[in-house]
Amino acid sequence: MAKSSDGGKLSKKSYEARLPEVRAALVRMQFELKSARFPVVLVVAGVEASGKGDVVNILNGWLDPRGFETFAFHEPTDEERDRPAMWRYWRTLPPSGRMAIYSGGWHTDAINEDPRTAREIEQFDAMMRRISWFEGQLAASGALIVKVWLSLSKSAQRARLQDLESDPRTAWRVAPDDWKSHRDYDRLARLADRMRAATHQPGAPWYLVDAEDARARNLAVADILLSRFRIHMRAQARVKATAGKPHRRVVPLRPTGLRRLLSLPLESRLSQPDYEKKRDKWLGRLNRVVRAAGQERRSIVWVFEGWDAAGKGGAIRRLADAIDARDFRVIPVAKPTDEEKAHHYLWRFWRHVPRTGMITIYDRSWYGRVLVERLEGFATESEWKRAYRELNEFELELSEHGVIVLKFWMHISKDEQLRRFRDREKTSYKRHKMHAEDWRNRRKWASYEIAVGDMLALTSSRHAPWHLVAANNKRHARLEILRTSCRQIEAALGL
Amino acid sequence: MAKSSDGGKLSKKSYEARLPEVRAALVRMQFELKSARFPVVLVVAGVEASGKGDVVNILNGWLDPRGFETFAFHEPTDEERDRPAMWRYWRTLPPSGRMAIYSGGWHTDAINEDPRTAREIEQFDAMMRRISWFEGQLAASGALIVKVWLSLSKSAQRARLQDLESDPRTAWRVAPDDWKSHRDYDRLARLADRMRAATHQPGAPWYLVDAEDARARNLAVADILLSRFRIHMRAQARVKATAGKPHRRVVPLRPTGLRRLLSLPLESRLSQPDYEKKRDKWLGRLNRVVRAAGQERRSIVWVFEGWDAAGKGGAIRRLADAIDARDFRVIPVAKPTDEEKAHHYLWRFWRHVPRTGMITIYDRSWYGRVLVERLEGFATESEWKRAYRELNEFELELSEHGVIVLKFWMHISKDEQLRRFRDREKTSYKRHKMHAEDWRNRRKWASYEIAVGDMLALTSSRHAPWHLVAANNKRHARLEILRTSCRQIEAALGL
Repeated sequence: MAKSSDGGKLSKKSYEARLPEVRAALVRMQFELKSARFPVVLVVAGVEASGKGDVVNILNGWLDPRGFETFAFHEPTDEERDRPAMWRYWRTLPPSGRMAIYSGGWHTDAINEDPRTAREIEQFDAMMRRISWFEGQLAASGALIVKVWLSLSKSAQRARLQDLESDPRTAWRVAPDDWKSHRDYDRLARLADRMRAATHQPGAPWYLVDAEDARARNLAVADILLSRFRIHMRAQARVKATAGKPHRRVVPLRPTGLRRLLSLPLESRLSQPDYEKKRDKWLGRLNRVVRAAGQERRSIVWVFEGWDAAGKGGAIRRLADAIDARDFRVIPVAKPTDEEKAHHYLWRFWRHVPRTGMITIYDRSWYGRVLVERLEGFATESEWKRAYRELNEFELELSEHGVIVLKFWMHISKDEQLRRFRDREKTSYKRHKMHAEDWRNRRKWASYEIAVGDMLALTSSRHAPWHLVAANNKRHARLEILRTSCRQIEAALGL
Repeated sequence: MAKSSDGGKLSKKSYEARLPEVRAALVRMQFELKSARFPVVLVVAGVEASGKGDVVNILNGWLDPRGFETFAFHEPTDEERDRPAMWRYWRTLPPSGRMAIYSGGWHTDAINEDPRTAREIEQFDAMMRRISWFEGQLAASGALIVKVWLSLSKSAQRARLQDLESDPRTAWRVAPDDWKSHRDYDRLARLADRMRAATHQPGAPWYLVDAEDARARNLAVADILLSRFRIHMRAQARVKATAGKPHRRVVPLRPTGLRRLLSLPLESRLSQPDYEKKRDKWLGRLNRVVRAAGQERRSIVWVFEGWDAAGKGGAIRRLADAIDARDFRVIPVAKPTDEEKAHHYLWRFWRHVPRTGMITIYDRSWYGRVLVERLEGFATESEWKRAYRELNEFELELSEHGVIVLKFWMHISKDEQLRRFRDREKTSYKRHKMHAEDWRNRRKWASYEIAVGDMLALTSSRHAPWHLVAANNKRHARLEILRTSCRQIEAALGL
């Protein structure tokens, strides 16, 4: 399954003969990487005492330390524990043009948990699934992922541990846990096999390196990195040449979504007194359920999407009225910052995932990928097409961590939008809300309908369903959002 | 000392009569803020039960929640505890054009510590000093800081607590601690006085608001915010008009620094065999002291400054050889990202302050403020002149938290630089290191010497001294840095 280096012994002389060439190639790689449009993620994992730390340190000596960072994950901090499992890895990802080395990767933690019961094995497998999503998403976005597994036979491991212990300069590196993992060698090896099988995929393959001879091991890791880098540079050059064509003809992928959208009755009305009475009732109820969610340490994520002028801002204000201001933040999603642009497109949403018990309200969201980015050609066809799966994966990760995900599409008719645009242009204190692209987007109404339909059909899931809100009448829409939010949160809490 | 609102009672009718105007003004303020070049920091602090949370929630209802965030600080997370005290506040600061509301501010934590012993009072005063530095630095950079203290007499506090407790909908908001702080009213009031006196300064004054009448209180806070905003907008418009002139004539502020720089003997040499022997000895020693620092949970910050081509990169690589790659990160300081540009100039360095026991190596640093920014006119004269104090404050905060700060200026002669530039241009794999601005900076050598001299004279402190390194000979320089680093760390650890 995974490719393997030759291993074998390497004399000091032939090692040193190869060093100048390898080091020069590494520095050249770093220089080329600077202007590349992808990041490099190098994982150095392996069995205990296989020399992960040594390899990482040696690479650090060979590379220019200003071009990359090294990470090793120990106990999660409480900020990390309070968020979905992959958050701590997302936050360390290097931007395009830079490299990060992960000692142990995200794979070692799961193995160290040493799952035994059926339930533990299930959690282990769920983690493997998340890891393979994570790596799959990164690889698909163009990141170069190089994963090396340093292997060592049981007897070689014993010899290495004894060597380390007998030298007073290195004895401190051998902990009682290391001997324990030596005794458990066979079980841990089976677990590692299972891990590698589950996370070996195109764009993120595992390379097995025999770690018995330290010199051969070091060179093998460098050689794998260098050759993958060369291949990747060539492949990325080809990708760039074909990418970025705006999408002309918009055809629905799954017409059921469009039908659902078009069949929404938009003319529901609600009188002002009726609205006020009901609103106060539902605001009170929302306040209670949100506090109940906080007490159960459940987070909430609200996603607001909708046509320009559909009333997202007003709906968010109404929601916010029911929630303690210290418990939520609103993230308006507009143009990404340059730090965001240099990362995977989901990175900027991962950044704002709420801590346990807290709330994030996204005013527009990751769905831009399959709406504006699809229609304006900011994403290539293969990018936005695979995004449906990626967005589902993202939301499932939130939901598995206990985050309640509430998604609203605020729907208005084309005529109603026109009325609101004209009203905005007439009213001095609303004029700042109008932008040139609002009119441009409006001209693409039919294409957007198709994209919204596909989004509804392909990303509505049991744990994160889409709620369609008829929003021609603002009062009706706001109440509908309050009511639906309450009910979904109550259901999630089992109330 | 602090300005005070009238207080007094406000009828529901006159309150509601004023609301539309106040809310419209707040929304207008948010709109104007969007294109302003400063952030707004609103602190709502006050005695227990004065309604901080209510005020914050009401402001949230009046404002557009997409334009700001609200923060309340509870127990620090372990990531926060592992860094200097002000780090957790720095990380939440809004960028230019946005606002943040701080419920309780950074002032409440210190008061809640309820210091009594002389030692505790001393820590309290140290925290007050840090807060006043923090606010002073923000205000000087153009941030609008509005701090409101909600006051309540002891009897009014008792009445409010009783009110809250008697209503089943609000009873949960009264904790046993609240009654305790009521019993301690007088001592806490004296402490709050002391806090306000210590942190009341130009650009960050306290406004006292009588919180007995909730309606008058709400309007008073909004009015203070609005009027400070109007004044600030006008003042900032004036500042912009006069700013940004490049500095033509460079005159030393403190000639002692320049003399120290010019008197450094640059011609120290070291033979290759001699170097290798000593280097290995000092690398080993550095490895030991760095591990010892980690075990004592002390962080280390290395700062490398020096002429172009002085050998900073090589020196950093040599250092890195002695340190476990998983314990340090190198931060190359180049052009700020747009997120960084939208914040205070120190924000991007605060971001990378290491956790307890970890290491950050800054390749160039905050001293850019008094070097390139001074000479190229990126900072105004008043900005770079006050920066000396700000940089000292920053480093003292690091040092008070136990961070060991090591600062090196790598010094070469103008001739040596020329030799190295020519060598870089000749050598293919070094050519990428040369930039047009290297030649431009070189033409300003004499001005840079003056700026470096001032930096040495004005920012060398006992806790963060400048080490001048004669770097015409690379071997000598690298060894000198290893040796000096070892000694300073050993001294800091009391070894």
